[in-house]
Formats: sequence, C-alpha cells, structure tokens
Amino acid sequence: LVSRLPHVGTTVFTRMSQLAIDHGAVNLGQGFPDFACDPALVDLVTDAMRAGHNQYPPMTGLPALRQAIAAKIEATYGHRYDANTDITVTAGASQAIQSAILAVVHPGDEVIVIEPAYDCYAPAIALAGGVVVPVTMRLDADGYRVEWADVRAAVTPRTRMVVINTPHNPTGTILRQADLDALVAIVQDTQILVLSDEVYEHMVFDGEPHASVARHPALAERAFVVSSFGKTFHVTGWKIGYVAAPAALMVEFRKVHQYNVFCVNAPMQHAIAGYLQDPAPWRDLPAFYQAKRDLFRAGLAASRFTLLPSDGTYFQCVRYDAISDLSEAEFAEWLTREIKVAAIPVSAFYSQLKESHVVRFCFAKKDETLQLALERLAQL
Amino acid sequence: LVSRLPHVGTTVFTRMSQLAIDHGAVNLGQGFPDFACDPALVDLVTDAMRAGHNQYPPMTGLPALRQAIAAKIEATYGHRYDANTDITVTAGASQAIQSAILAVVHPGDEVIVIEPAYDCYAPAIALAGGVVVPVTMRLDADGYRVEWADVRAAVTPRTRMVVINTPHNPTGTILRQADLDALVAIVQDTQILVLSDEVYEHMVFDGEPHASVARHPALAERAFVVSSFGKTFHVTGWKIGYVAAPAALMVEFRKVHQYNVFCVNAPMQHAIAGYLQDPAPWRDLPAFYQAKRDLFRAGLAASRFTLLPSDGTYFQCVRYDAISDLSEAEFAEWLTREIKVAAIPVSAFYSQLKESHVVRFCFAKKDETLQLALERLAQL
Ligand SMILES: CSCCC(=O)C(=O)O
Ligand SMILES: CSCCC(=O)C(=O)O
Repeated sequence: LVSRLPHVGTTVFTRMSQLAIDHGAVNLGQGFPDFACDPALVDLVTDAMRAGHNQYPPMTGLPALRQAIAAKIEATYGHRYDANTDITVTAGASQAIQSAILAVVHPGDEVIVIEPAYDCYAPAIALAGGVVVPVTMRLDADGYRVEWADVRAAVTPRTRMVVINTPHNPTGTILRQADLDALVAIVQDTQILVLSDEVYEHMVFDGEPHASVARHPALAERAFVVSSFGKTFHVTGWKIGYVAAPAALMVEFRKVHQYNVFCVNAPMQHAIAGYLQDPAPWRDLPAFYQAKRDLFRAGLAASRFTLLPSDGTYFQCVRYDAISDLSEAEFAEWLTREIKVAAIPVSAFYSQLKESHVVRFCFAKKDETLQLALERLAQL
Repeated sequence: LVSRLPHVGTTVFTRMSQLAIDHGAVNLGQGFPDFACDPALVDLVTDAMRAGHNQYPPMTGLPALRQAIAAKIEATYGHRYDANTDITVTAGASQAIQSAILAVVHPGDEVIVIEPAYDCYAPAIALAGGVVVPVTMRLDADGYRVEWADVRAAVTPRTRMVVINTPHNPTGTILRQADLDALVAIVQDTQILVLSDEVYEHMVFDGEPHASVARHPALAERAFVVSSFGKTFHVTGWKIGYVAAPAALMVEFRKVHQYNVFCVNAPMQHAIAGYLQDPAPWRDLPAFYQAKRDLFRAGLAASRFTLLPSDGTYFQCVRYDAISDLSEAEFAEWLTREIKVAAIPVSAFYSQLKESHVVRFCFAKKDETLQLALERLAQL
C-alpha cells in the first residue's frame, strides 16, 4: 500500500493531549476550553431534537443559520454575502479548509502557506496534488510578523492560492489593515485565490478590530473566509463552522462538500441559528479571553520564559532559551512529563524543521487551571 | 476558474426534495424517515451535553463508541476488529467514503463501481485523480443483479479498488454469500482493495442474513466497511457513521480524516455509545421496515407499475413502461408536479445516461404518508 500522505503522522495535538493524560499534566497544549458553554445553547439543541429536527438538513446548511451568518458578517465587517449562494455550513473549520482546497487546487498548482502554519493546510494541498510553497514569518524581539515582500517573492505563474490565518495560530499575532493592503497589492490583477482562516475572529484584544478579509472587497471577491462556532461558543466538539465566498467559488466548494459530509448536524445548526438571534452573543468574548491572557502573562512575568505578544487567539507563545536548549519537541515533552504542564512545540507548525525555542500555551482554561499551571511553571 | 469536478451538479436528492416542497408533493424521493427517533436517544444527547461533553473528542472517535462498534460487528458478523486501530467514527457514511477513497486511490488508479451506484463514489474518485470503471448490473424480470464475470472482465493491472454496496441503493437488491465468494475469487492474489457501503445493513428482509464483508475474512482483510447510525437509528441529520478496516488501511484513512473533519460531534457520539449498551437496539428494524415495504407493495399491486424486488434498504424500485414513455428524469418530475408524489429517477445513478423506465420510492415513512402517496399513485 503506497501512502497518499507519506509525511503525515498523528497530529501534535492528539499526541500532546495523550501525553498530558498519561502524565497527569495540566493540558495547555491542544486548544480547547475546559469550561462549560452557555446552558441556553445546550437547551436549544435539546429543543431542536425534541421538535424533530433530526433528519438531513439542506446540503448547504439551514437557511436560518446561513441568513444569521450573512447578517453577522454584514453587521461586523460590512460585506454582504448572499445567504443562499455564498455561505455553506461545514462540519467545523477543518472540513471547510480541506474541501475548499480540494475544490480549487489542481495537480501542480502552488499554494503559498505562511509558516508557522496550522497543520491542516499542507495535507489538503498534498491530497489535491498541489505544492506547498512555505513563506516563513520573521521572528524578532517584537514577535512574529509576515514580511509581505517574501510572499511576493514566492509568487510564480503557478500560484493558485495564498492561505492566511488571522488571528494567527500558533503565534497569537494578528494581521492589520496594512497587511491586507499588502496582500491586495500582490494578488490584484492575478488569478490567485485567498483562503482566510479566521476561526479566532472574536478573540482580538486591546480594542483592535479584527482585520477580516470580509472588510476588503478586493480580497473578499477572491477569498474563502472560514470561521468556527466551536471556538466562538466554547463547543469545539460540536463541529459546526462555515465558509463564505463569492458564488463562483462556492459552486466549486459545494461540489466537494456535498460528496464529503453532504450536510452538517441538524440539531446543532438549529441551536446556533437560534442563538444568533441575539445579534452579538460573542460580545463579551474579547474581554473574557483578554483577562485570561493577562492573568497568564502576569503569572509568567517573573519567570525565565520570554513572553511573545498575544494580540489574538487563545494562545500565548513563549521563548524558553533562558531555561533549556532542548529542541522544542523535547522541551514540550519534558515540560509535560516533569513539570506536568503540556504545551505545543511551535516546530510542529513548519513544513521543514525549524527550531526557535518557542512553545505555545493555550489559555482557554478556567482561572484555577491557569493558576495551577502557573504554580508549576514557576518552579523553572 | 477551472472546475475540479466539471460534471458535478446539485445532487438529485436535493433537487427532488426541493421540487417536492415547491409542489406540495409527498416526498418519497430523498431517503430519510419522516417519523421520530427514540426519545431515549435524544435524552442521551442532552445528558452528554449537560455532563460537559462539548469539546473535541478523540480524532478516531470516542473509545466507548469504537468499542461498542467492534463488539457489535463481532457479535453480528463474527469478525474481530481492534477498537483502537481498526475503527474510526465519521461524520456520516459519506465522509467515510470520500476520505477512504482519497486515502488510497492514486492518480491514474482505476476503481470499479457497480451501477446503478449511489452518487458519492464517482466524485471522490475523480478528486483523487482516479478513473471510474463502471460495471452495469443486469436488469431482467427478476430485477437487478451483479454479473461477476463483468466485474472480472473490468479488472486491469491499474485496478485499485472495487466498490460494493449491500443492501443496494437504489435497487433494493442484496448481495448473498455466493456474490461475496465470487468477489473473493476476483480479488484474492491481487492488490485490489474493497470499499463496502453497508449503510442499510440492518434493513434486510424475509429473514435473510446481511452478507457483510465482515463475515468474509478474505474480503475483510482488504476492505473498508462503512455504516451509518443515521440510517439505523432514524437520525440521518446527526451525521454519525463509521468505517472499519484492517489497521494498515486505517492508518491511511486517518491521515485524511484527521485533516478533514478532525473529529466528530461529541454529544451524539456519547449518546450512541450509551444507546449501544443495549446489545441490539436495531433488533426490530427489519420487521419494522419489512411491514412498510409490504404495505407499499400491496398498495401498488393493482397499479400499472411493475414492482421490482426489494430485499433490503428502504427503497422500492418500479418500472413504469405501462404508464409512460417519458425519460426517468421527466417521469419523476411529472410524478412530483402532477401526481404530487416525488420519486428518484434511477438514471441519476449511472455515469453514462441509461434509461430503464425505473424510478425509486423511499418507504421510510409513516404509514399515513405511504397511504397518502398510494392514493395518489392509484390515479395512474
Ligand atoms: C483540532 S485539534 C487542535 C486544536 C487547535 O486548533 C489547536 O490546538 O491549535
Ligand atoms: C444524502 S441525501 C440522499 C439520501 C440517500 O441516501 C438517498 O436518498 O439515496
């Protein structure tokens, strides 16, 4: 049996979560909340099931949910998507990303991926027969940033797509207006598409706006914009996300989607559609996560870790040069086993091994969980 | 934008369901029950959500659910799959099928598909860069059957996989022991894999056993066996299915799965795992659907439709030669518009248009629904 994906193993998230369980470590590795979602959201699922919404919903998603998503995007970012032709509900953001890539990347096409990068882009590109062209973010004392001249230099006549991700996992950086302007300058007058992974869109701190591609018509017209209700409503295990794109792109997306999952969990879709009747149920989310970020950063301030910026997401990256010269993978394992706090090595987010002595912690945890982790990390 | 799937449109199921709504027709087209699932199953989902099972479950599926699936397969078909390495819970059977095909079909590989065939195999094969090699079932007065000599004749050195489906959608035929023996004779001593779509496994009538590939070690050792809890528990909108395969195949499957959906709805998985503590919650299903089949067939006995056999699934195919010479697509539309009963043209299940004057009705409906449809069809 010849593998289609010879370089793929089990994800670092699964491996580190298992290691955390095996060693009784506080799991600040895999990104997921350890607190409850709103009980009202749970009740809406129960209501939907009891009302009999247990059969196939439409392939594209429940109309009420698509309309709520279109209304939300318009109210938040000013871009008007047609709820019928431009929005599809997906089994989480991952499925949106894999299906979007399979829908438009042809064998031999190049896809620019800005690294460190979430680990699901490259395997989807490989399955499509495409080629990943990595562009490495610059890392200096101010943290990670995209150097757009590097992106421009990576463009060739075979470039089919650029994948961006803001707020950015794993680094916690965000793109700003100037970044999107730079991207526009690169892709305008080309056939290059954009895949914008915005699953942490409602976790941007310090009062900054989220620079959604949906704010930029010149990008939105050529982009798949992906988001996740799992992240926004603390239900990562429900697997409900969506993708928005102009109709011409969405037609191609749906061809793959309808023969992948065909459609998405009906009761959860009804529940989220109901929940979105409140015009902004995520309104407290930035402050909620900013407080956790601040608590976590304050707890590490006196440590020998160097804190990198965290402007968005629920992740905090730290340099550990002053503590150890282990590789990132070794350090993350050691931290899990010996200090009993699990983290994710950022090296896992590069296509070619790159060591920067940086690990990522997830602060989407109860304050007590964060306190316990901080006590343990204070030993270092 | 060049399409990766130029031949794909919106599925016939979506189109006919929409037409049924537009014309107030009884929808015997798309296959889904119009009655409620067991309220106890709904309560188990609510319990799981309230117990806090709302975050990512393991990528491969909840251990308790995988164990219950392995136990069920062993008790029912005698084959022992390892719950850890051989079983993965999927977002419905469609996702299992697309991911399995993407995992093992390489560009240029041939995949034998027995037609009429459910419509999701061919697009997945196309996305993988593979080639569909259709083998047409024979249709005579006794209905549809696979001629295995035709399958053997279709094998070439590039054949990577044979897709089978029993009980068979759309025809309602089933494979029997002798069929699987014939398939063994073709694939043994080759590298050919088998994908066995068995989503209607618990809907086999007249006391016949379901000829699962899991009963045949010589097939199971090279097969992906796919099933669907949506079909078995009347919850097609929950999107929970699974795939079982030997570990070497499952390793490749999971590489695609983990970057597709990553994992599957947690509360529904908990609920189904709990529901499967009853060792055979589907025990009444064959009798339940056989009664509906018999009711529906009895109602059509005096009509000018010719009933084909329905030995399994919740579908009944009929010839309409005595009523009309419209094409199948035209006849199904006419029936929906004028007679107000929606059906599916079987021509939609062939890669090359084939007209046999056969349409498919779904009898997974309340008895009242079936009675209403029968009254309308009696006009013909
Ligand atoms: C899908 S498991 C990984 C969760 C996540 O997004 C992360 O930890 O980066
Ligand atoms: C996924 S919609 C189609 C349902 C079905 O399996 C059928 O009608 O054949």
